[in-house]
Amino acid sequence: MGAGWEVDGRATRPLRITLDALLQPVVSKRFPLGLPAAVTTPSRDLPPLAGAQGYIMLELDFEKGNGLLPAIAQDYRTGKVLMLAYINPLAWGETLRTGEAHYWSRSRQELWHKGASSGHIQRIKAVYADCDNDAVIFVVEQVGGAACHTGYESCFHRKVENDGSVTIVGERIFDPKEVYR
Amino acid sequence: MGAGWEVDGRATRPLRITLDALLQPVVSKRFPLGLPAAVTTPSRDLPPLAGAQGYIMLELDFEKGNGLLPAIAQDYRTGKVLMLAYINPLAWGETLRTGEAHYWSRSRQELWHKGASSGHIQRIKAVYADCDNDAVIFVVEQVGGAACHTGYESCFHRKVENDGSVTIVGERIFDPKEVYR
Repeated sequence: MGAGWEVDGRATRPLRITLDALLQPVVSKRFPLGLPAAVTTPSRDLPPLAGAQGYIMLELDFEKGNGLLPAIAQDYRTGKVLMLAYINPLAWGETLRTGEAHYWSRSRQELWHKGASSGHIQRIKAVYADCDNDAVIFVVEQVGGAACHTGYESCFHRKVENDGSVTIVGERIFDPKEVYR
Repeated sequence: MGAGWEVDGRATRPLRITLDALLQPVVSKRFPLGLPAAVTTPSRDLPPLAGAQGYIMLELDFEKGNGLLPAIAQDYRTGKVLMLAYINPLAWGETLRTGEAHYWSRSRQELWHKGASSGHIQRIKAVYADCDNDAVIFVVEQVGGAACHTGYESCFHRKVENDGSVTIVGERIFDPKEVYR
């Protein structure tokens, strides 16, 4: 097993697969990542950290979204949702490999290493996948304190009332004109 | 302005539009919801709760996602991300109108009133829109305590390590066989 990402100085270690994991559906893959693809049947008596065999390896389902799926970035301290962007297999692989959030820019049609230009990278603290493998959460440390290109901590800084009216919540952390020159 | 949704018994009220709101891009709409569409220019001296005029009305951008955009459901007490699903203009309108989360089921191609069959509805506590109007957060009270059809509190109950291995986190709240008969 991998060493896991550092969280507060302690390396996270994968837990044992529980029996519940056996109940998870296995999604066929058309976008292999170079990660071990085989799903073997875990034994109830596997020791922790027994190695890749016996553990379920994740295969995300990129097909439903035409090669993309949404990734939610969430602050590792506050739980605040910072942004939502999209990943393709390349962005997913680069995120796992580097420990820094990578997305696929739909507007630019290119790999987007978040923070590459602003310095406001997102250090991965944990990653979660949803029950049908078509959405993920990146739990991150947001360098610079703001994920939004407008300078707000969160891209979700506009509160919508039930009549559709909008109010701004939160404060600007940085001035975009100073960061993106 | 609308009365807002109830949060802990207190009605939420829209704050004043700040000057920052003027900097938000206005997205053209092709999917009007019957909500006021005009964006007027707020005065700096508008009193709070001055009425719809002077407030920015949200127009979500459904075009980028071919008529759909992602909605993140987040627990109003814990901040835990419970699930991600999709909305179309109908689901968005029904969510605002009823105060209960509605999505668009991509698999069934129909309006999905979350919890209609299980009773596990999601009561809207707040709604946020992101900076480019193509993703929203529903902050909800999850009736029954579990959002996932597998019985877990969150659909994101599988932690992914950096080698792609998966471990289950969290406990089942209900037995799906008991809830979905």
